Amino acid sequence: MSIPAGASTPIILRLELSRSTASFAQIATVIGDTGGDIVAIDVTRSDAASTVRDLTVNVYERSHADRIAAAVGRLPGVRVLQVSDQTFLLHIGGKIETTPKTPIKNRDDLSRVYTPGVARVCMAIHEKPSRAHTLTIKRNTIAVVSDGSAVLGLGNIGPQAAMPVMEGKAVLFKQFAGVDAFPICLNTQDTEEIIAIVKALSPTFGGINLEDISAPRCFEIERRLAEELDIPVFHDDQHGTAVVLLAGLLNAVKLTGKTLESCKIVVCGIGAAGTACSKMLMAAGVTNIIGVDREGALVPGKSYANEFWQWYADNSNPFRLEGSLSDVIEDADIFIGVSGPGVLKAEDLKKMAVDPIVFAMANPTPEILPEEAAPYVRVMATGRSDYPNQINNVLCFPGIFRGILDCRASRVTEEMKLAAAKAIASVVTDEELNEQYIIPSVFNHLVVERVREAVIEAAYASGVARKETPSKPRASSPTPI
Amino acid sequence: MSIPAGASTPIILRLELSRSTASFAQIATVIGDTGGDIVAIDVTRSDAASTVRDLTVNVYERSHADRIAAAVGRLPGVRVLQVSDQTFLLHIGGKIETTPKTPIKNRDDLSRVYTPGVARVCMAIHEKPSRAHTLTIKRNTIAVVSDGSAVLGLGNIGPQAAMPVMEGKAVLFKQFAGVDAFPICLNTQDTEEIIAIVKALSPTFGGINLEDISAPRCFEIERRLAEELDIPVFHDDQHGTAVVLLAGLLNAVKLTGKTLESCKIVVCGIGAAGTACSKMLMAAGVTNIIGVDREGALVPGKSYANEFWQWYADNSNPFRLEGSLSDVIEDADIFIGVSGPGVLKAEDLKKMAVDPIVFAMANPTPEILPEEAAPYVRVMATGRSDYPNQINNVLCFPGIFRGILDCRASRVTEEMKLAAAKAIASVVTDEELNEQYIIPSVFNHLVVERVREAVIEAAYASGVARKETPSKPRASSPTPI
Repeated sequence: MSIPAGASTPIILRLELSRSTASFAQIATVIGDTGGDIVAIDVTRSDAASTVRDLTVNVYERSHADRIAAAVGRLPGVRVLQVSDQTFLLHIGGKIETTPKTPIKNRDDLSRVYTPGVARVCMAIHEKPSRAHTLTIKRNTIAVVSDGSAVLGLGNIGPQAAMPVMEGKAVLFKQFAGVDAFPICLNTQDTEEIIAIVKALSPTFGGINLEDISAPRCFEIERRLAEELDIPVFHDDQHGTAVVLLAGLLNAVKLTGKTLESCKIVVCGIGAAGTACSKMLMAAGVTNIIGVDREGALVPGKSYANEFWQWYADNSNPFRLEGSLSDVIEDADIFIGVSGPGVLKAEDLKKMAVDPIVFAMANPTPEILPEEAAPYVRVMATGRSDYPNQINNVLCFPGIFRGILDCRASRVTEEMKLAAAKAIASVVTDEELNEQYIIPSVFNHLVVERVREAVIEAAYASGVARKETPSKPRASSPTPI
Repeated sequence: MSIPAGASTPIILRLELSRSTASFAQIATVIGDTGGDIVAIDVTRSDAASTVRDLTVNVYERSHADRIAAAVGRLPGVRVLQVSDQTFLLHIGGKIETTPKTPIKNRDDLSRVYTPGVARVCMAIHEKPSRAHTLTIKRNTIAVVSDGSAVLGLGNIGPQAAMPVMEGKAVLFKQFAGVDAFPICLNTQDTEEIIAIVKALSPTFGGINLEDISAPRCFEIERRLAEELDIPVFHDDQHGTAVVLLAGLLNAVKLTGKTLESCKIVVCGIGAAGTACSKMLMAAGVTNIIGVDREGALVPGKSYANEFWQWYADNSNPFRLEGSLSDVIEDADIFIGVSGPGVLKAEDLKKMAVDPIVFAMANPTPEILPEEAAPYVRVMATGRSDYPNQINNVLCFPGIFRGILDCRASRVTEEMKLAAAKAIASVVTDEELNEQYIIPSVFNHLVVERVREAVIEAAYASGVARKETPSKPRASSPTPI
């Protein structure tokens, strides 16, 4: 059997082999015949009756691994205990570690890092608490806090199962922006408890990134924490998405020659993300915006049980359009989907104004697939990495927190979010801008620095930056002995 | 001025220099004349009227730094803004960082560390929560939790000021035992709130190290958390001290040819540490133990307002000795001080049994200074690093948590603590054992491994180890795809 060209990926087969009936030669033959390449063997356990061996085998895709495991499992005396792929292997023991910045080599080091020397540092902070921003990890560390209630598209899977996402986020924070982020997954979904806990945790951190907390609790939690804490609180699922969406839209309307303020925008899916995105657009000057959810267009003057819907109805749809998505999308310039797969039809696209802009961000399956929409839209964006124009929060959160920490902001203002969106959009130059490239790649190194600078400037303008401006001696300088 | 022999240490002088009146040549001359050595200069700020410069100067001790700063400050046009020594410099930005274990180099890495690949790992944990011990940082990460209420000898300095101690502890955990420890300083001193918070934080961690929480709250907090959580909770100020004390005593009595069980022991200072140390000794077989505090010996049958004292009186002093420390110390084999400076007199030592053992652990000033006690004692130990036989928790906590994590213990049993004490004592061989060397150095590499092994063995014996024994396939092995 031939192996297709392209990178192979290692898996580990854990096999229990009966000493009396299993033959390793047979196993090797079967793996070879199935197209696998054995690159390492470890004996994990061995007793009189059986041995357990870990075979590292290079395969070319996931289904290939399954075929090999099945073939090996049919051999006499062989039991396949586990098949581990690279994704699982890299998760073993977690994805982050806590590392000392200065090693303790001798007693002298010990006396500075720990007792008795550390006592003077403690007392310096006790005398002037703002020194914690200089002399502790607060200067560069944020918490990524979740209760596991709305994790990715997986739903309420709980705090332990949410950890891999929060750890992944911590990896991104450090790698893209040098921010130390620590994942905290809480074993409670009670709003008041979460608020109390995050408040109690705040001495350690310079900022709080709320993550994957379900609506409507996420709003109350964020609002209260922002009011009651003196460090910034940012719910990435709402504001990260909103910032990147606006960045993409700014460039998309540029292509069509329209202005965002003059556009008719239909937003489908009025939950946490839809509300946050709409508020961001309103802050950017949009007025003609219509929200649509399961009951159709949300209309001013009507009563809704769902509190987001009520807020939305009261603050949008100036021409009081009624009806289904299909009805209100007529003459719309922009469609924004944060709802579910397939809710938008090609027929709907045909009704839109000239040069339709469609941001279909439902994950993993968009409101309409790009290949289906292609004939009818001018600009298309999704949340997926396998299509052009991915609306990905990774473009926002590292840079925004880098800026927050560097100017020691006490909160995140609307101006800072707007500035971040414009900064992301600015990475795509006028020469580069085209229908397939309205938003930079997450690996574009300009993004974090642009966002950081814009956020810092906006933070000073908003009056929430607590660090003296760089033209004066920095407040984070060494503390007197 | 001549510089004494020995290592010099850098300080940073931050100086504001008037452009019109200050002379850098004068400054350099004064620093040189005062015995300082300028090794680097940075301009921090510069405007029309003045410049701010950071001068790195090698000095030989702290008072030398003060003399240089004073001399420079007397020059015309010079203002000394800050003098920072090495201890403060190494604290800038904190002492630990959060580091990715695998870098994200490309989109493929991103899809494993974060979405969409991470979703499969989340679901694997959701299906079987014990996998969190394998697939997340829980496997190797503990929280170092404090409320800042009893920090070192500094008292109730609060959570922000406590951070440098907890960060230092995290450095020690990682460096000595490879344990990832994250400092959490809580902005509450309410017992119930702390219990609720630590319970809510527990999904992230494999163990909880409570630290510098004042008595009596520390007892209730530890007891409740140990009962209500399925990960170990260890209040280091109590049990770490008790374990290392017992290790030292085991070797000290060996020198005198006595057995611990037959010794008369007087414990002075019946708070959290004194109670924990005494319980540890009782677990090791000691019966003739007498507690002394401000009201004198604690006597069975008497009533005490202080709840530790009451417990102590009810569970010690079998011969119902009454009176002051001076009275009850007569014929005692061992004195243990966890009280305050100078409470033990040379006259008291003279009344003790032959070969007196004195552990005077008050910090920073012991109950009696070793030089004063020397003529009258056989073995002397303190909490200080500048005398022989330092009773230092650093000998215990890294190894005990290494063992806890490696066998996935659900709690810390009395047997595990006793095993740790014996393991620490065992590092000093019979050939090495002498009055000046009853306890190993914190830098002795044998300590952590011995403690780890002993703790694991005891955990299996106690039935609290949840990982299959190493002779079977390890439960932490790769998870099925």
